[in-house]
Formats: sequence, structure tokens, C-alpha cells
Amino acid sequence: MAGEHPAALTAVEAARRIRDGHLSSEELVDGCLERIRQVEPSVQAWTFLDEEHARKQAKAADERKRSGEPVGALNGVPVGLKDIVDTGDMPTENGCALHKGRTPRNDAAAVKMLRAAGAVILGKTVTTECAYFHPGKTRNPHNPEHTPGGSSSGSAAAVGASMVPLALGSQTNGSTIRPGSFCGVYAFKPTHGLVPRTGMLALSRTLDHVGLFSRALDDLALLAETLVGQDDGDPDTRPRAQVPFRAVLAEEPPVEPVFAFMKTPPWESAAADTKAGFAELVGTLGKERVEEVPLFSFAAEAWDWHKIIMEAEMAANFEREYDKGRKKLSEKLRSLIERGREVRVVDYQRAQRMIAPLNEALDDLFMQRYDAILTPAAPGTAPKGLKSTGDPSFCTLWTLCGLPAVSLPLMKGKNGLPLGVQLVGRRNFDARLLRTARWLQEKLTR
Amino acid sequence: MAGEHPAALTAVEAARRIRDGHLSSEELVDGCLERIRQVEPSVQAWTFLDEEHARKQAKAADERKRSGEPVGALNGVPVGLKDIVDTGDMPTENGCALHKGRTPRNDAAAVKMLRAAGAVILGKTVTTECAYFHPGKTRNPHNPEHTPGGSSSGSAAAVGASMVPLALGSQTNGSTIRPGSFCGVYAFKPTHGLVPRTGMLALSRTLDHVGLFSRALDDLALLAETLVGQDDGDPDTRPRAQVPFRAVLAEEPPVEPVFAFMKTPPWESAAADTKAGFAELVGTLGKERVEEVPLFSFAAEAWDWHKIIMEAEMAANFEREYDKGRKKLSEKLRSLIERGREVRVVDYQRAQRMIAPLNEALDDLFMQRYDAILTPAAPGTAPKGLKSTGDPSFCTLWTLCGLPAVSLPLMKGKNGLPLGVQLVGRRNFDARLLRTARWLQEKLTR
Repeated sequence: MAGEHPAALTAVEAARRIRDGHLSSEELVDGCLERIRQVEPSVQAWTFLDEEHARKQAKAADERKRSGEPVGALNGVPVGLKDIVDTGDMPTENGCALHKGRTPRNDAAAVKMLRAAGAVILGKTVTTECAYFHPGKTRNPHNPEHTPGGSSSGSAAAVGASMVPLALGSQTNGSTIRPGSFCGVYAFKPTHGLVPRTGMLALSRTLDHVGLFSRALDDLALLAETLVGQDDGDPDTRPRAQVPFRAVLAEEPPVEPVFAFMKTPPWESAAADTKAGFAELVGTLGKERVEEVPLFSFAAEAWDWHKIIMEAEMAANFEREYDKGRKKLSEKLRSLIERGREVRVVDYQRAQRMIAPLNEALDDLFMQRYDAILTPAAPGTAPKGLKSTGDPSFCTLWTLCGLPAVSLPLMKGKNGLPLGVQLVGRRNFDARLLRTARWLQEKLTR
Repeated sequence: MAGEHPAALTAVEAARRIRDGHLSSEELVDGCLERIRQVEPSVQAWTFLDEEHARKQAKAADERKRSGEPVGALNGVPVGLKDIVDTGDMPTENGCALHKGRTPRNDAAAVKMLRAAGAVILGKTVTTECAYFHPGKTRNPHNPEHTPGGSSSGSAAAVGASMVPLALGSQTNGSTIRPGSFCGVYAFKPTHGLVPRTGMLALSRTLDHVGLFSRALDDLALLAETLVGQDDGDPDTRPRAQVPFRAVLAEEPPVEPVFAFMKTPPWESAAADTKAGFAELVGTLGKERVEEVPLFSFAAEAWDWHKIIMEAEMAANFEREYDKGRKKLSEKLRSLIERGREVRVVDYQRAQRMIAPLNEALDDLFMQRYDAILTPAAPGTAPKGLKSTGDPSFCTLWTLCGLPAVSLPLMKGKNGLPLGVQLVGRRNFDARLLRTARWLQEKLTR
């Protein structure tokens, strides 16, 4: 391992070496910057990167280590941030022509937490326009003719191309799990309200989640442990005890987990190799470990409820952009806002009222028997072309319900591109979901 | 005092006598029932009253006292409940033709709290249809040709007619403060979220408040102290320390309070005797104690924002009633729902977004200099006739902002009917508002 290129290290390994004095943060950051210089021309994951500023942060981390003071769990480890996450020291342009040159005064709550843990904020990664569908410049690191997925395109691609070990994104529909699947990385959307969204571009209070990317499962645990907390700026966060992600992930499950394989309505449009891959996976796990469970029938409308809520809340949140500069918005975003502006409160509230019964029905599944729901992360591998970021519909229901979801890069399509296995857990049982994911990964790769 | 009719006692006095063994709850309840038999034919405050059931509760309270066990602060004291407050042992019909015969399975959270404090739930009082504008049968206890106000008509009238010392109502616009003013009683709307609304008819999550009625200021403190709490069924409640209403009310204010006399837009339509009464009141208090403060200009739209929020949320909450039985709803309620069904989410969210800046501007007033805002409770005394419950517009702004408000029966109109002085306090400084109210009352009646 000693000869390995520092940029290829996982976050856990890098943090350990820095802590033990076998690697400096400056060497690690230099390694990442070198890797970026090599692959960024084809991947185009970054929208802002100041090498000197990154090196200064790395030096400060090394200084903290040398001082002998206790340092945070991410001391010296670089993290990329989707360019909808506010940073007081770098621009945050939200992928929006109207926000060009925008430089926030304050760090987002999540950034404060990262800095408190000693992380180096390496730079800002490409987002689709306002974290909706209109693509940015990023290409899939496995094949530049294919989309990296979106809206957290740059974060998924930067981690997938080993430019940075960790990155933050967001998910309002499938914006973390889908690019994670397409770029062959680990992607994690914790329970709604677990990670504060203060200082991030608001699309939809009901649906917005912070997303996490890494190249190892225990990196997700390390990163998630840093980000949980209550913040007055995010009314959906609650005071809670620290979630011991790493400790739980290190445990063996007390009994072997049982999975509910759920096809859900988008299965109809899934690719043949996705269907075949999941048939094989289910076969490998065997009847003791996985059962196919149909989605309860009233949930079939969940995709409509999600659409109503997302469109209405986005129209409300982007009212100023629409009023002042709609001509500078993409046709896709403009027409979403126009649909959203027509949504009536009664329809919106009816959709909102369905979230609780959906969650009750799903919670019953978890209580009864299943440790996680097993389902594809996307209908197939990353589609060819850069005009679309692909289809989020395998994520919609779990986003609407606020359930924790993780995508594991355990499959490949016929074209050799990665395809994620998605596991969905019980609300607020995020650490156990990662433990279940580790069990599955070991079972399948052993 | 010993010869006084028990029904005429304040709650504090009645509770004390019961605690000291000078009065039994049964005697008190019998006194109330006797008074009800006398005046109910003309006042019509009650929609459900079971004398035997009330007496049984009184006997149980007397039994608790005799047992020597510690008893609650309201042990043996009767309370009337607006018929939108669920009771597991009595019907709750919401003043709605469609809810006739409705018998809930559970007590509302507030009722559980009252019972835990030892209160006797005397019966259910008349509400307007679904706590909106279409009047019930109740008449003003001071003159049966005049409205008692609404929507908490029966609770205000029952307390005003000395049929019961305490009652609960609700306020979504002016439904507690206005009938309190018209019926010559003390009426108190605590800060939004202070008293849980679980198990009460939901009109509007944003605007609904629990309301309190009594014939003495310290009764409001006694009752309020019982009702504060967090409840999982009401997402706007928060865990908080017990508010020491009685202790704070018993204190002298550290310095003499200063009032902001605010006319607000409805002043234009206030009656001549209201205007004259307030001019006199302001003169009596003097320039050291009261200053006329204009409402900041952007608040002029607050009445529109309130209307948008109330109509939209009520349309969403009464969707089933509208879909299944709109012909049985009054024209007033039906047309409200129809307006509300057309409200778009963008307009609704824009109105919602104004609540925080309104509150910040009002909070500045309280921080700067003023202990309370002084303003009429209603444009004038109770209007003649029973077809309307009067004008809530002097309450709208404070309801929208969720501020605590109290109406004190300190004035009379030219026609001899009561007129309330409304004091509005800082959010979550409810006990201090009552203390300021006591100071004002003593100043004016000394």
C-alpha cells in the first residue's frame, strides 16, 4: 500500500496515515491536485478550484497535527463540494447563469462541520442548473461520451475519477444515488433532516437531502458521522445524540439480514441487463436472505405526489429568478417553474398528507421482517450522451419518504459501465443501513 | 364572600375553597348547573351537557381530595369546552351538519391536561360552523339581541353568564379575543405552539391557536399553566420548561410598563365610542407610559397574507367535507373553501415567508422599548343581530404572527355593552404579558 498514489487512498486510510504521521495532508492534497490535472480535461468535474487555497488548508491541517493538539476525524482529508453548498471563501454559483459570481458570506452548516473535523475543502464541483435537470459540463469518468448523472454530477465524477476521496452532493429526487450509480462510487442519502441543509440552495424543503460520495463504505460512515446535527437554520433537523456510524459499521449484524427485493413501477422501464443482474443477485442471496415484496398498491401514486411537491416548492423557491431573469434559465427549469406556479395548495397538501401513511406502510415492512429494501439505483448504466442526466425514478419514492438510501457499486452493465445496487433503510436507522450494506457487499464479493 | 353563589366564584377562588375544604366540587358543579338552568334558555351557550356525568366527575374530584392524595391545580373546577375540542366521553360535532353524532375515541391533548389537573369537563359549548363564520344559536349574555361574537361563541357566553368559571375556545383569526370582548370576559390566546392542538378541529396549522376564557386575570394564569406542553400530535409544539404563569403574575413588574398604542388599518372602521374610549385610556396612562406607534408599512398587507393562508389551509383541511357533503355546508363556508381551493402554492408560500419578517419587526418593538402593544379587541361592542359574529380584523395580524394576546373587559360602549382592551405581547413571553395586563388593570380600576 505504501507505494500507492495518495489520490487513490480511501478517506479512512488517508486520515489514518495523516494521523499516524505516514502521510501529510499537503502530500495528499498535492496528489489529488496532480490527479486532477491529469483527468480533469476529460472529466470536467470542477467549477472552482484554487490550488494555493487548498494547499494552505492542507498546511494548516499538518500544523494542527504537528502541534500535538487533538485533531478532528477528517484532519487533512480533502472534500469536494457540489456548487450549491455555500462557502465563505469560494464562489457558489448553483449552476445558474443568474448566480454567476455569487460569493456567499458564510459557510453552509455542513461545511462548518467539515472544517471543524479538520477537512480540506478542495473546491466546488459541477452541478446541473440549480440542481435540476439541465446538465453541466461534466462527463462520466468511465466513458466521457456518457453522462455522469445528475444533479450532483461533479461530486460523483470527481470521486469516481479519484480526484478527491470524499464529496458532498444533494438529492431532491435521484441526484445523489443516480450519479453515484453511474460513476461507480458509493453514494449515501441519509434520512431527511439528519444532516442540516442550512446554506445550501433550497429547491424543496420537503424533498431536499444532503448526499455523500466516497470510494469505500467505511468512508461514508466517517463522513456521515461528521455531518449529523441540529441546526437552527434547518427546521427539519432535530437535536439528537451523535450517530455512531463507524462503530455500528464495524459490528457484525446480530443475525444475517433479510432483504425485501422491490421492483416498484419504474422496473418496467429498466434495462435488460439490470433485470438480469438483479435476478442473478437475488438468486445468489437465496430465499433465506431475500424475498420479492410487491409495493403496496396506493404507493403507485407516489411519483405524482413527489412531482406535485417538487414542482410547487421549486416554483416558490425560484420565484425571484423567474420574475427577474427567466430568459436566462434553461427551458427545462423554466417550464418546471411554470408548472409549479400553477399547483394549488389543496393538491399540494393532499400530496403532503400521503407521506405519513407511506412511511407507516414502509415502516411496517422494516418492523415485520426486512433489514433493507433492495432495488436498482437506476434503470441501467449511464446513458450515452451529455444532454440528459438520466432517469431518477428508482429514487423518487425513497426521497419522498425521507428514508436513508445507499448505492453500492457492485454491478456492471453489458457495456462495462457501473451499475449501483440500492439499499433503502428504515427512517433514522442510517448506521444500521450501512452495516447491512457491508454485509451484502462482503457476501457478494467474497 | 362566603354567601356568594358558587357559580359566581372565580376559578382561583373556587379551587382554593375546594382545596381548603370550604366547598365541594359537587356544590360548585351543582351551582353551575343551577345557574345554567336559569340563564341557558336565553343565552344558549351549550351544545352538550349531561348533568349526571358532570356530577360524577365532581364526586370523583371530591373523593380525590378526601383521600388525602395530592390533587391537581384545577381539582373539582368545572371547565366548558368549545365543541371542536375532542372528548372521549361526549360528542364533538364541530358545529358542522356533516359531523352530527360524531363521538371521538380520544380526548384532545388539552382535555387530557385538564383532566390530569383535576378539572371537571362540564360540557361542550356552541361553536360557529367549523369555527368559521356561520353562527350557532348562542346569544350575548349582556343582551340577547346581540351576537356573542364567534367562533368561540358558547365558551365566551357561558363564562360571561357565570355558567362556568373557565372555558376553552380557539382562534384562527379573532375567534377568542373578539367573543371575549363582546361577552365582557377575560380572553387569552397564548403564543402559537405553546398549547397543543392535538384532537381539536384543524382549520389551519399556521393560524390555529387554543383560546382561554375566564372572569379574572389570575384564572387565565391558572388555566394556562395547566395547558402548556409538547405533544407529538402537534408539530408546532416544542419541549419546554413549565411556564410559571401564576408566579410571574403575582410579581410586580420590575419597572412600570410602557405600551405601544397601535391603531393598525382596521382603526378606520372602529366605532366612535371605541375611538373615544382609547383616546381617554391613552390620556389616562400618560405620555410616560404609552406612545402611539404606527404600524410599519409593509405590514399593511398582512391581512391579505392571513386570508391566503387561512383560505388555502381550510380548503385543504375541509376537502372531504366539500367533496362529500358541500350541500350541507353554509354558503359562507362553502365559498371560503371554493376560494381556498384556487390558491396556488407560490402565493401561499409567499404569504408564509412574510411571517418571519413581520415577527422580526414586531420583536424589534418589544426589544427596543415596549412591554405590550395596546389596541382594541374589536371595532366596537357586540353588533346587534345574530346573523353575524362581528369583525375579527383587530386580531388578524397578531394571529398571523402567533403572538400572545389578551382581551381585558375594561371598557363599555355607549350602549352599555362591554368592549375589550387588547394587549399583545412578545412571542413566548406569555406570562409577562399577563403581568403587564394586571398592571394596566390595576392602574385603570384603582
